[in-house]
Amino acid sequence: MIRSALLLAGGLALSGCVVDASVTQAPPAPAAAPAAGGVPAGMQYLYGSGEAAALSAQAYNALVDQVRARMAKDDPKGPHPRNSVVLAPDATLATPRFQSCGDKPAAAVFDVDETLLLNLGYEGDDARRSGGWDSARWDRWEKTGAMKVAAVPGALDAVRALRAMGVTVIFNTNRAAANAEQTEAALNFAGLGPAKHGETLFLKGDVDGKSGKDGRRNAIAQRFCVVAMGGDQLGDFTDLFAGLTPPERRAAAASPVIGSMWARGWFVLPNPVYGTGLGSTYDQTFPPATRWTDPQEKQ
Amino acid sequence: MIRSALLLAGGLALSGCVVDASVTQAPPAPAAAPAAGGVPAGMQYLYGSGEAAALSAQAYNALVDQVRARMAKDDPKGPHPRNSVVLAPDATLATPRFQSCGDKPAAAVFDVDETLLLNLGYEGDDARRSGGWDSARWDRWEKTGAMKVAAVPGALDAVRALRAMGVTVIFNTNRAAANAEQTEAALNFAGLGPAKHGETLFLKGDVDGKSGKDGRRNAIAQRFCVVAMGGDQLGDFTDLFAGLTPPERRAAAASPVIGSMWARGWFVLPNPVYGTGLGSTYDQTFPPATRWTDPQEKQ
Repeated sequence: MIRSALLLAGGLALSGCVVDASVTQAPPAPAAAPAAGGVPAGMQYLYGSGEAAALSAQAYNALVDQVRARMAKDDPKGPHPRNSVVLAPDATLATPRFQSCGDKPAAAVFDVDETLLLNLGYEGDDARRSGGWDSARWDRWEKTGAMKVAAVPGALDAVRALRAMGVTVIFNTNRAAANAEQTEAALNFAGLGPAKHGETLFLKGDVDGKSGKDGRRNAIAQRFCVVAMGGDQLGDFTDLFAGLTPPERRAAAASPVIGSMWARGWFVLPNPVYGTGLGSTYDQTFPPATRWTDPQEKQ
Repeated sequence: MIRSALLLAGGLALSGCVVDASVTQAPPAPAAAPAAGGVPAGMQYLYGSGEAAALSAQAYNALVDQVRARMAKDDPKGPHPRNSVVLAPDATLATPRFQSCGDKPAAAVFDVDETLLLNLGYEGDDARRSGGWDSARWDRWEKTGAMKVAAVPGALDAVRALRAMGVTVIFNTNRAAANAEQTEAALNFAGLGPAKHGETLFLKGDVDGKSGKDGRRNAIAQRFCVVAMGGDQLGDFTDLFAGLTPPERRAAAASPVIGSMWARGWFVLPNPVYGTGLGSTYDQTFPPATRWTDPQEKQ
């Protein structure tokens, strides 16, 4: 960063978190008032900044480069020692094991919202409201917002490159099955399609009726060799993070075994606007050992 | 992300932006009141979440993998077609050209704050304050906070791996030259050292007296073949983004030519807490074409 003669950029962040209580322990935080004339800082960053665009393009560039290298190594006539990047059912965060690939065709599995699609219409509306998350309003957004979205920076080039390599692009989202057609339309509008419910589009409750995505991931891994996964929430990679506190999630995500997956099969997109990345308490955010007191105030 | 039965995570984001007015056009935003009992959402995300830890580890994994591949290809007895990832003085964002490497030894150049170091002590203190950026308080932090920082997730492994490959790690930060010793101490405390002012540590005003970093980057590129750069602000890669509006910065960062640099020589770290990634207006954040009105409110 660049510091000095100070330009103050800030703002009130109103964040409607839309996570499933069954798969997270992130504590609830009070709904915030909307910024007076401003845009919540997280939205400025995610939807308005070059820095976040760079982060997204970086994730997609790394994904394409890694899949390309992996596909080039895979001689279809040779042995298939490849593993999927989907964890096996008996895996833990300490001892991850992966599904086997065999001769299955390659696929890449992506979350949708704030992974491939920016929900600009919904969030622009939300930025002007006070109050918290309204699931009925989100449902109306799924039903009517298909033309008010944009592809995440880098996503279009990535899905095109993957398909050109023969890698099937699969969408695994917790949008509602009842709105399958409109979600297909939103992905098509953004240029990310085709998406077909039950084939390349998996929605909430599909396969096992759950909002956790492991059931759907396992079903996909039965048919495909999953060479990459992309998402903005840890639950887009495995449900094993569910039930952990924020510091436990953070430690696990940066642990030697799980930490080595990022950019190497698992690709994370930024989202400081909503989700399981928010909600840590003061002590969870700033460990007591790092407390600092301005020496001027000791005088 | 995962949506459904709603857990509300949000909060007020107080963001003290500390950027140089000479190298950014990000508009000022009003200072926000501190969250009532909460932590600003951007801080929860950056310092408290597994998702941000994953983003950081991803950037560093991609950097190490890319530098390793590049170093392996470089036969010291062969020709040196390598280019630096530092732009040449006559480059533009539309037509980037790069410094040549010749036979110079390899180096990787990093920003410090929120790139290699998390300023947990300072930000934890800031989270409890109202009001804006106070440069005098930041100066006291530089002088006394060396033991209240932590390495960014993934950074320690990366600098060790780079040094093991024979790549010199160079720090290019806008911390004050008067506090060089304390900044060296902070980097050493976090395990990221050694850093030596004038050799591997470049501070604000070094080389050309400016806060823009191009002068220092050029000086480094005279002595080293820069194989990777890391930073949390676009100004950590080139000063050419300075003077652009947020939408222009975003478009340039995601353009075909500059967009292809991310994860391929340029590596960006997340920072939704302060800096040039904040400050976009409503219209700059949410393009008019994406406006959505909740259909229920039309009734």
